Amino acid sequence: MKLATYKDGSRDGQLVVVSRDLSTAHYATGIASKLQQVLDDWNFMAPQLQDLYETLNNGKARHAFPFDPAQCMAPLPRAYQWADGSAFINHVELVRKARNSEVPQTFYTDPLMYQGGSDDFIGPCDDVVVADEAFGIDFEAEVAVITADVPMRASPEQALDGIRLVMLANDVSLRNLIPDELAKGFGFFQSKPATAFSPVAVTLDELGDAWQGGRLHMTLQSTWNGRKVGMCEAGPEMTFHFGQLIAHICKTRNVRAGSIVGSGTVSNKDWSHGYSCIAEKRAIETIEDGKPKTAFMKFGDTIRIEVKGKDGQLVFGAIEQKIAACTA
Amino acid sequence: MKLATYKDGSRDGQLVVVSRDLSTAHYATGIASKLQQVLDDWNFMAPQLQDLYETLNNGKARHAFPFDPAQCMAPLPRAYQWADGSAFINHVELVRKARNSEVPQTFYTDPLMYQGGSDDFIGPCDDVVVADEAFGIDFEAEVAVITADVPMRASPEQALDGIRLVMLANDVSLRNLIPDELAKGFGFFQSKPATAFSPVAVTLDELGDAWQGGRLHMTLQSTWNGRKVGMCEAGPEMTFHFGQLIAHICKTRNVRAGSIVGSGTVSNKDWSHGYSCIAEKRAIETIEDGKPKTAFMKFGDTIRIEVKGKDGQLVFGAIEQKIAACTA
Repeated sequence: MKLATYKDGSRDGQLVVVSRDLSTAHYATGIASKLQQVLDDWNFMAPQLQDLYETLNNGKARHAFPFDPAQCMAPLPRAYQWADGSAFINHVELVRKARNSEVPQTFYTDPLMYQGGSDDFIGPCDDVVVADEAFGIDFEAEVAVITADVPMRASPEQALDGIRLVMLANDVSLRNLIPDELAKGFGFFQSKPATAFSPVAVTLDELGDAWQGGRLHMTLQSTWNGRKVGMCEAGPEMTFHFGQLIAHICKTRNVRAGSIVGSGTVSNKDWSHGYSCIAEKRAIETIEDGKPKTAFMKFGDTIRIEVKGKDGQLVFGAIEQKIAACTA
Repeated sequence: MKLATYKDGSRDGQLVVVSRDLSTAHYATGIASKLQQVLDDWNFMAPQLQDLYETLNNGKARHAFPFDPAQCMAPLPRAYQWADGSAFINHVELVRKARNSEVPQTFYTDPLMYQGGSDDFIGPCDDVVVADEAFGIDFEAEVAVITADVPMRASPEQALDGIRLVMLANDVSLRNLIPDELAKGFGFFQSKPATAFSPVAVTLDELGDAWQGGRLHMTLQSTWNGRKVGMCEAGPEMTFHFGQLIAHICKTRNVRAGSIVGSGTVSNKDWSHGYSCIAEKRAIETIEDGKPKTAFMKFGDTIRIEVKGKDGQLVFGAIEQKIAACTA
């Protein structure tokens, strides 16, 4: 099934079930009002939502209405955890090569992950509000999953069973703040502002063959200012699958229901696929020409991130955002 | 007023109001069931809880019962944000001096903060469950605040107005995992397992003169295996006050209600105050004798963290935990 959260002025919005073709939606009223509730009590609530989903797909849901992604908050407008990996090692290799630094051997066996802020996610069509253009605004197109409870010391295989939903993310990064921040040694903080997620989060059965071994074998498209810049394969080159990423968290703690885990920038060795973040394009330019040519995003720039199924239809809806100045 | 969360088998527990002397408590039923609800709608709910608090203090609350810290979850059993500072630069100076490294000048003007996991906090009397003693188990006694909504670009002074509640934290750290983790460049992750908080979170008016300039001017006591090891002043040497820490987060994003912000290990220049984490004791030993002598915690070790008012009474209740092996 496909789930979304509609804006209603509240902090957590209203849970809606969305038809497979994303044409119609239906409030989940009577089952659950918020997605977190469903994740907290999945085995009881998911079958009820699935029933509603089937009725909706059959055109028989009485109070269905046209689905409008612009009315969506992030599927989880706020979450108890947002842990983002950097699971496409090719991305790390490129960025490091551009600054003449080696990739440590452990990076191929031990996932890179950082803890992100999760109190204030932005909706798929909301502006990306940034205080200063000089921060070096970049998009990062990613795949993300929402988990069930997964206990401490779970294996990667056990962790795979703890994946409830899949969605897309725009993990906005402020590139010019990163060097100073990483030099301080405590990791990303100010350089990672609010993250946006796709209109719709979907269960694994919706993905069919495309979900294999904890990876999404589909093409992630990124369109910057109307120009298609990325057609990256999200599956085969993901060095660590989502079960491995979740198990990495579980080494020292429990992962609780509603945790969001990200893949990191989707990246392919074959540069003809384009890029899922500008930093990577700039790394390639630096490797080729000694310096980056492509500038980061400006206020007014747009970014669209989407995945299409074999039928050409959007699977998760599209993230479609504009960069805007903070006027506060 | 003083607020706590009682275990009831649910993920978020039941909100209780606790009397000033921590002797009695009363369910907040009819006002709010969870602390996050109160933080989401503070101006409406806090006055109602304050009324109940006064009735309770006057011994007139009809359904009052004896308060038992062992029944407590963390005041927020899970939160949308846990951002921990390292605001006592003396701690950083000691740790760096022990490894012959300088403290960069910017550390005195730009706070160090990391994003922590917030999906699975532990109660004040719950065991600290660790998978392996060899991880180098350490306690970290800290002061923490819970915030209201604070908008992007808020000043430190504005951010001070966004502090709703104060509590204590045991930011458990796995010291032997830290070097490799920091070397990866993405900051703390596996080295920071679940954090514990004091039984009670209190509003600023409860602290009287002890709350000044965004700092808690009280003595934080740490007792390890029954031996008092720390009597550290939490106020005067806090290099960055809580308004500055919150404003640091707000540089690039909004901080939303219910965010928890920590001080980092409380640390004093005068070593006679003792220590609020073992790593600091080991740093001092290394500076003095070339190598650390004190070992990290073992399974079965206990840690008690508390603050007493001028009247000798506990202000936040005590964190009182045992280190236990993960049996999963």
